Amino acid sequence: MEVKEIELKGHIIDSFILPEVFDTIMDHGGEFEVIQFDIGKHKKDPSYARLLVKAGNRKDLDVILGELLKIGAKIPDIEELRLEKAPKDMTLPEGFYSTTNHRTYVLLDGEWIEVKNTEMDVAIVVDRENKQAFGKTFSDIKKGDLVVVGNTGIRVEPPERPRSYTIFDFMKSRVSSEKPTRSIVSQVAGEIREVKKRGKKVLAVAGPAVVHTGSAESLAALIREGFVDVLFAGNAIAVHDIEYQLYGTSLGLDLRSGRSTEGGHRNHLYSINEVKRAGSIENLVREGKVSGGIMYECIKKRIPFVLAGSIRDDGPLPEVITDVIDAQKEMRKNLEDVELVLMLSTMLHSIAVGNLLASSVKTICIDINPATVTKLSDRGTAQALGIVTDVGIFLPMLAEELIVQ
Amino acid sequence: MEVKEIELKGHIIDSFILPEVFDTIMDHGGEFEVIQFDIGKHKKDPSYARLLVKAGNRKDLDVILGELLKIGAKIPDIEELRLEKAPKDMTLPEGFYSTTNHRTYVLLDGEWIEVKNTEMDVAIVVDRENKQAFGKTFSDIKKGDLVVVGNTGIRVEPPERPRSYTIFDFMKSRVSSEKPTRSIVSQVAGEIREVKKRGKKVLAVAGPAVVHTGSAESLAALIREGFVDVLFAGNAIAVHDIEYQLYGTSLGLDLRSGRSTEGGHRNHLYSINEVKRAGSIENLVREGKVSGGIMYECIKKRIPFVLAGSIRDDGPLPEVITDVIDAQKEMRKNLEDVELVLMLSTMLHSIAVGNLLASSVKTICIDINPATVTKLSDRGTAQALGIVTDVGIFLPMLAEELIVQ
Amino acid sequence: MEVKEIELKGHIIDSFILPEVFDTIMDHGGEFEVIQFDIGKHKKDPSYARLLVKAGNRKDLDVILGELLKIGAKIPDIEELRLEKAPKDMTLPEGFYSTTNHRTYVLLDGEWIEVKNTEMDVAIVVDRENKQAFGKTFSDIKKGDLVVVGNTGIRVEPPERPRSYTIFDFMKSRVSSEKPTRSIVSQVAGEIREVKKRGKKVLAVAGPAVVHTGSAESLAALIREGFVDVLFAGNAIAVHDIEYQLYGTSLGLDLRSGRSTEGGHRNHLYSINEVKRAGSIENLVREGKVSGGIMYECIKKRIPFVLAGSIRDDGPLPEVITDVIDAQKEMRKNLEDVELVLMLSTMLHSIAVGNLLASSVKTICIDINPATVTKLSDRGTAQALGIVTDVGIFLPMLAEELIVQ
Amino acid sequence: MEVKEIELKGHIIDSFILPEVFDTIMDHGGEFEVIQFDIGKHKKDPSYARLLVKAGNRKDLDVILGELLKIGAKIPDIEELRLEKAPKDMTLPEGFYSTTNHRTYVLLDGEWIEVKNTEMDVAIVVDRENKQAFGKTFSDIKKGDLVVVGNTGIRVEPPERPRSYTIFDFMKSRVSSEKPTRSIVSQVAGEIREVKKRGKKVLAVAGPAVVHTGSAESLAALIREGFVDVLFAGNAIAVHDIEYQLYGTSLGLDLRSGRSTEGGHRNHLYSINEVKRAGSIENLVREGKVSGGIMYECIKKRIPFVLAGSIRDDGPLPEVITDVIDAQKEMRKNLEDVELVLMLSTMLHSIAVGNLLASSVKTICIDINPATVTKLSDRGTAQALGIVTDVGIFLPMLAEELIVQ
Repeated sequence: MEVKEIELKGHIIDSFILPEVFDTIMDHGGEFEVIQFDIGKHKKDPSYARLLVKAGNRKDLDVILGELLKIGAKIPDIEELRLEKAPKDMTLPEGFYSTTNHRTYVLLDGEWIEVKNTEMDVAIVVDRENKQAFGKTFSDIKKGDLVVVGNTGIRVEPPERPRSYTIFDFMKSRVSSEKPTRSIVSQVAGEIREVKKRGKKVLAVAGPAVVHTGSAESLAALIREGFVDVLFAGNAIAVHDIEYQLYGTSLGLDLRSGRSTEGGHRNHLYSINEVKRAGSIENLVREGKVSGGIMYECIKKRIPFVLAGSIRDDGPLPEVITDVIDAQKEMRKNLEDVELVLMLSTMLHSIAVGNLLASSVKTICIDINPATVTKLSDRGTAQALGIVTDVGIFLPMLAEELIVQ
Repeated sequence: MEVKEIELKGHIIDSFILPEVFDTIMDHGGEFEVIQFDIGKHKKDPSYARLLVKAGNRKDLDVILGELLKIGAKIPDIEELRLEKAPKDMTLPEGFYSTTNHRTYVLLDGEWIEVKNTEMDVAIVVDRENKQAFGKTFSDIKKGDLVVVGNTGIRVEPPERPRSYTIFDFMKSRVSSEKPTRSIVSQVAGEIREVKKRGKKVLAVAGPAVVHTGSAESLAALIREGFVDVLFAGNAIAVHDIEYQLYGTSLGLDLRSGRSTEGGHRNHLYSINEVKRAGSIENLVREGKVSGGIMYECIKKRIPFVLAGSIRDDGPLPEVITDVIDAQKEMRKNLEDVELVLMLSTMLHSIAVGNLLASSVKTICIDINPATVTKLSDRGTAQALGIVTDVGIFLPMLAEELIVQ
Repeated sequence: MEVKEIELKGHIIDSFILPEVFDTIMDHGGEFEVIQFDIGKHKKDPSYARLLVKAGNRKDLDVILGELLKIGAKIPDIEELRLEKAPKDMTLPEGFYSTTNHRTYVLLDGEWIEVKNTEMDVAIVVDRENKQAFGKTFSDIKKGDLVVVGNTGIRVEPPERPRSYTIFDFMKSRVSSEKPTRSIVSQVAGEIREVKKRGKKVLAVAGPAVVHTGSAESLAALIREGFVDVLFAGNAIAVHDIEYQLYGTSLGLDLRSGRSTEGGHRNHLYSINEVKRAGSIENLVREGKVSGGIMYECIKKRIPFVLAGSIRDDGPLPEVITDVIDAQKEMRKNLEDVELVLMLSTMLHSIAVGNLLASSVKTICIDINPATVTKLSDRGTAQALGIVTDVGIFLPMLAEELIVQ
Repeated sequence: MEVKEIELKGHIIDSFILPEVFDTIMDHGGEFEVIQFDIGKHKKDPSYARLLVKAGNRKDLDVILGELLKIGAKIPDIEELRLEKAPKDMTLPEGFYSTTNHRTYVLLDGEWIEVKNTEMDVAIVVDRENKQAFGKTFSDIKKGDLVVVGNTGIRVEPPERPRSYTIFDFMKSRVSSEKPTRSIVSQVAGEIREVKKRGKKVLAVAGPAVVHTGSAESLAALIREGFVDVLFAGNAIAVHDIEYQLYGTSLGLDLRSGRSTEGGHRNHLYSINEVKRAGSIENLVREGKVSGGIMYECIKKRIPFVLAGSIRDDGPLPEVITDVIDAQKEMRKNLEDVELVLMLSTMLHSIAVGNLLASSVKTICIDINPATVTKLSDRGTAQALGIVTDVGIFLPMLAEELIVQ
């Protein structure tokens, strides 16, 4: 029997950490013994626990400890951080440590260093000279990079469940369409105002349904009035937005009358061609060819936007980043200071952006399809709050709430 | 080879009747020969066709003719209406003719008589003395009733596709969540105004989500302001509506703050008990215990409502009709002059009411779950227009559009 | 400040009871102090906690205690059970205690008595003479019944999370369509075998999709081979099943070729009429008119079945109970010894039956629509395991697994 | 009033072309006069119509004619094909003709030439010297390319509805989960056999759910036995497939027991790293590191596969084409002789591939989410047959049907 002592501190009952620790040990065939437990007497007091974790052999114990580490356990008699060199570019050493999306520290030469740029499922590379550690994806790994392997010398801090009563608590566990929608809109507006008050940023991740459902003007207004600081989207929404500005249609559908107009997809393609002729969306705006809409407001307000390519794209527009790895990199660059993410009717971009977010970033996913929200959580963005509603009326109401006339 | 001549008249190309006739004949193994075809030269001109329908034997031909009859074919050399007596109560003679939801006529003693009270899938009973014919469900059949059998002496008039450009045309073929929602709200408001202007009635069929999503006040306002003339619902929505009036909650959820309050289902049960103590919803309103909400407005405005029971019911409230066949009868009684039906987030009631409607009644089904709309069409309510959206914001917007402040 | 001491015992960390207690107190504005906490040292050891619960006034404290009681807290200095008489038939005294679906005890004349026939959301009626207590719905309440009010003298035992590794643990938290379907089928088969081995019963709650998707024969086989002991269903599935036996179609669709055949709904109505002529489904079977299918096997095996009416029903068949409250009563009667429920593609019946089940009954809900499962949990059947799959291939595979050729 | 004569030929009633022509004219504010109509007397006889199309001005008439052209109208007094030079690379001249996904011809120097490589929404470029015409996407356009503009000198041939009774007819109009699943599996198997018998190709477009649901082995078997000739997929499914081969898990879930195993995403990342170390999936297979699965069979059978990148990708694997426009090109190259496409649980790839397909390619979309099928049709892949079922049992059943043991 191999044995190791671990420590747990904080709101470990409230935040379900202690039961998760028990589950993890037993799911992997281990045993435990609680050797100390001091419960927080009042709601703000932290609790403290020491446990002996037991497993049949060293390998099994290591697996269990690796898992416990990721949910916040501390291993008091700290072993050294193990490092190995990357064998070639874009390739990691065997047994590399893969990160969670929680705040992470490594014990580098006797000192706990916070790992920068972590996100879900990346490796940790150490810069010994400068006493720094970074999260790195496969494509950024260079031959010879010092990569963390195993699971010693690492600490992870999962976020604790907040005790305050916000919309995130209210809806914590359920993806349901049967919720008081208007009250939810107000609460989302409140969250946005909070973030702006703290001087932090709101990121909107928007899918084409924003235009199809006729709510592009509302998103544009939110950008214009300073409630959205960064936009991530794809080729389609940019084209639809410009088509609507140029022709009043979206995929040939007149969004005001609801009538389908000339030529189905013709306006769609003509819009792409207009941008191609101008050379870029930015040029089209500068030339005065469009005078409103989502892209127009981004360019006028100098709001950074990332248009990431997908294999469904027509065109695509010149600003679209067609290489998906480049697009990921560009999105990462624009995540600094983002504290709230609104995911608006896009499964692909929501899951992709979710993978890049730290677990502390508040994430609200608005989609009429409950599957989007379920998948987002299944893929690891556990902090995402799902609101099953029609973005075509949600955005106008949100804009109304936020923008005082 | 058995042969029979049929006739078709009207906008048979536009309304897809001619291709449906061809399909029907061939799907059942028959053959056809077009012996005359006069096409309408301009858009308002009707077309006319005569066809020979052929089948291998008399029985097959009869099956085909029966089908063609139901989609509007006329059999020029008319045979007599065949009648047989019902062998016992609630039981029909073999080979009885089952109706469509289209306008239907029978040839009674040399005269074409319109069948009254038809709906999908009922039998036709003839009152020879008074020269009348009625649709009758199984449960209304009495021993000895003269029931139409076979498919001769019958004419059916399916509705033609309208040429005007209404929301019903716009969305004709598709159940999609990617539609310009606000524009759709305006168009639904327009349809309601049209019906009211003609002095006809609007029926709302409402599910509990109307209350859960916080839009009970909007539906109440529509009733109060005269935009809803009849209400069909179940026990649950009535209880939730009253719970919201008495306690501000719906299944224990505070609809204003979104917080869950004391006792989950306790308020729900206490609300039922309050009505039980008063003796009826009407008494509760008369005693001044509730002063708003859906049920309150119905009672104040003397709007007829039918609360139909289901096996999910708690209580149920005294006004709820617990026998489902009685509930169907009560609903039928309240369909007169109804020209527009709003189905609000309820699969069970929508399909049930859909079965009772003539194909000429405009039907709009609002549900966040596209399956509801699909099922409604699959079950025969082909005229239903499906709007996939969140009733929690749809109803407030509709109320805003219709009620001028 | 009002204060009361409570006790918690068992696997209160593992089963999330302790964090739920903390949440409940704080959600209702109370405070707590932990005065004793003995954690179970090993996985099978129970834990024990004593807490002081505090609230601003007596009423708030009562609300909190009422909630804590329902999740398993014990109030050591026990107060008396409070009883009040029902003021009239079908009406409860104010402040009546409404049950959970957990095992419940009342302190009657110094003795803890288990409440019989409890289910979610009923009242407790005491028979002092015979020292018994019963769950009673509104419709069973008689004037003068001694009803439990308030929340003293009551104990509730929520089920603890099992530590064994069954399918119920595996899928505990998520409703997802991305699961290894075949492996799940095997595990469901295993659960059924376990229940049968213990001499307990399996209840199938079946919707019409079972027939439409072509899997009626599989359900029939499961009944014939003794894997289903009780059947709850509606009029529709019984009619479709008989239509398939009589004509090979379901709503006019030939289930073998997938072709639509003569007359759409005609076979449907003719099937109803055949049963009407025979007088009952049972007579039809006895007369040899049908020789297989779901209803045939029920009758041949003398398996109890309850066909509950709904407002969508055509006909209905003679065995259908058209009064929904009577139907509920009949279902309750047939729940004894049922330890496993298979809910097969029916939202209405699943939620209705879910309301009647004790929290200890294993419940598996198979539906292609994730909304059914979500609603089932939202409505209180928290123990339900949702499997999002196509019943049309799930049932054949399950039958294959269980029935050795 | 501007007037133009058009001609229609073929099964224009059966295939709904004539009513669509009437609709199109009137939807755009035009008028028509039927000047000749010869109906096909029997089911195999084509019909013939001549119409005068009228509009208020030349521009409106052109719009109408453009639309009619795309649904198969012929303009008898043919005008010349109009060509204009592309003003710069990746940019088209104003008023360029955008294609449908139907067979298309242009009148080049007095001769009707079939346009090669057409797909939905591309431009037509003419090579005068070699008397050829090609569909070209934006990214392939070179400065000076001769591009077709306007809508004269063009003919389009939409496919006629087949009269034979295949699964495509049976399910033509509806996306429903209530279908006889087993019978559908047989019919899909029949379609595959037909295509193989004609020496044509079957393309599988597969999403990660194929592995998650435990049906990777079935798809692998279909490849091995020669029922799938081309595979289009993404990074995720390839990684999951290899993870399953290396570790028996998919995203850390043991697909045999359904238990979640060590380290959630760890095996996922380790699998990517194994491929990185080997240099490619092909090397990994050649080195004997994997001995089964989807990718293994593709490589062993030398089946062409295209792995297209998306912004959700981890890694990605070396064979993944990270530039989405390059990925589109690679997919186009592999479409030759493909006559049947199976789209397996992937919305992104299904819509992307749908855009590349001619309308004559039979397309079957299998997904548990009805929204995928609806979106596919909305986006133009009108020929797609949607089967709402669980791919996790559909694929095993399909493999069983096709592969005789």
